[in-house]
Amino acid sequence: MLIEGKNAVREALNNGITINKLMADKNLEHRRDEIINLAYQNKVKVEFVPKFILDKKSQTQHHQGYIAEAVDFKYAEVEDILKKAEDKNEMPFIVLLDGIEDPHNFGAIIRSCECAGVHGIIIPKNRACQVNETVIRTSTGAISNMLIAKVTNLKEAIDTLKENNVWVFVAETGGENIYNKNLNLPIAVIVGSEGNGVKQSIRTYCDGIITLPLKGNVNSLNASVACGVVIFEILRQRENDKKE
Amino acid sequence: MLIEGKNAVREALNNGITINKLMADKNLEHRRDEIINLAYQNKVKVEFVPKFILDKKSQTQHHQGYIAEAVDFKYAEVEDILKKAEDKNEMPFIVLLDGIEDPHNFGAIIRSCECAGVHGIIIPKNRACQVNETVIRTSTGAISNMLIAKVTNLKEAIDTLKENNVWVFVAETGGENIYNKNLNLPIAVIVGSEGNGVKQSIRTYCDGIITLPLKGNVNSLNASVACGVVIFEILRQRENDKKE
Repeated sequence: MLIEGKNAVREALNNGITINKLMADKNLEHRRDEIINLAYQNKVKVEFVPKFILDKKSQTQHHQGYIAEAVDFKYAEVEDILKKAEDKNEMPFIVLLDGIEDPHNFGAIIRSCECAGVHGIIIPKNRACQVNETVIRTSTGAISNMLIAKVTNLKEAIDTLKENNVWVFVAETGGENIYNKNLNLPIAVIVGSEGNGVKQSIRTYCDGIITLPLKGNVNSLNASVACGVVIFEILRQRENDKKE
Repeated sequence: MLIEGKNAVREALNNGITINKLMADKNLEHRRDEIINLAYQNKVKVEFVPKFILDKKSQTQHHQGYIAEAVDFKYAEVEDILKKAEDKNEMPFIVLLDGIEDPHNFGAIIRSCECAGVHGIIIPKNRACQVNETVIRTSTGAISNMLIAKVTNLKEAIDTLKENNVWVFVAETGGENIYNKNLNLPIAVIVGSEGNGVKQSIRTYCDGIITLPLKGNVNSLNASVACGVVIFEILRQRENDKKE
């Protein structure tokens, strides 16, 4: 995976993305600027090349003199996520995304999940945003600490979760008020896409729908905000029950 | 304010933004496409002009044949926000933003606030994202239902709130666990900027810091997610106390 441009390369270096090699404009060789120094600090090999080589290699045409070759993101399996919960001696806490398309939303969701102690995220292989440079950048480093499983079929993943005694809930309008519901369970929450929510076929396949009570005229939150509010409510209930 | 391009104009028309006039490429006159029809449905005057006029008027050079002249957003006063709470016979529930710069975050925050029943948002006049086309679009219509006050000095706004018996809390790391805190009060929450959080001078000026307990290695959420989680916790406590 190529990461291009000053800001993107800086953030990749700062956020623990494994970079095989940084290619930088030859003219920067004697300047030793911030990015180059950062690369050296991170023991990343720096190769100074003529600008036309960067132009040729660039996929965005906005390399600004820097192209980093990063290691492709390594997806996990659903079983790895269940294993992580087991290893931590915690009830599984999992998020499924049904067709999130916006990389900024996906990145923000990864960040929220990491902050809330979610064990892993499950995404579909098709018609959904995959882990790319924008996702990595928006996750502000959280991705290096998060298991993400990519599955051909969300229903099969739900089957696996159910077989492992995980309750699978859809977070959407029209269900049970989330604040009246006991969520201190082995749990997986499905968050739908920005435009269409969770597919009907998935919705009916789950153990229930949990809904945030909304007070306004707009009847839905941004996908990453909705996901954040729901997973922090689960965390709140867990922490609360621990205290009692 | 000009709104340009097919998607932006469509969303403005769908989201109740008041549009004085839609200028469309003359070549579209006999096609009567979706956008033109939508404009007529919304009783918006449509003016068909040669493309070079659109090119000249365009600020983005991506007008795609459509430029809408929208009414500038009308900011409110802090007092209007307090009045709205009073009129609804509710305890004030207000969000202050200390330097949010990303229009997508600002738009998502407006959307969350509208959904949570927040009475209004206060933003600083300088060094912060103002209401623009992207903000309006990202708010998915919520903005037409939300009071936003723009103030020269956040501290003065905080003074006004305090004089009106509103508790002002900063949402940030290092404070009291939000889940242990009684938030069922006349309340205003300050959310900081993406990079720097809430300014020190503002932080010490408030009634306290409330903090989401985070479980991961990444020590902060995306600004719009953080705001969403905090305001829904306030809403939860309010609704909960009503039931008891």
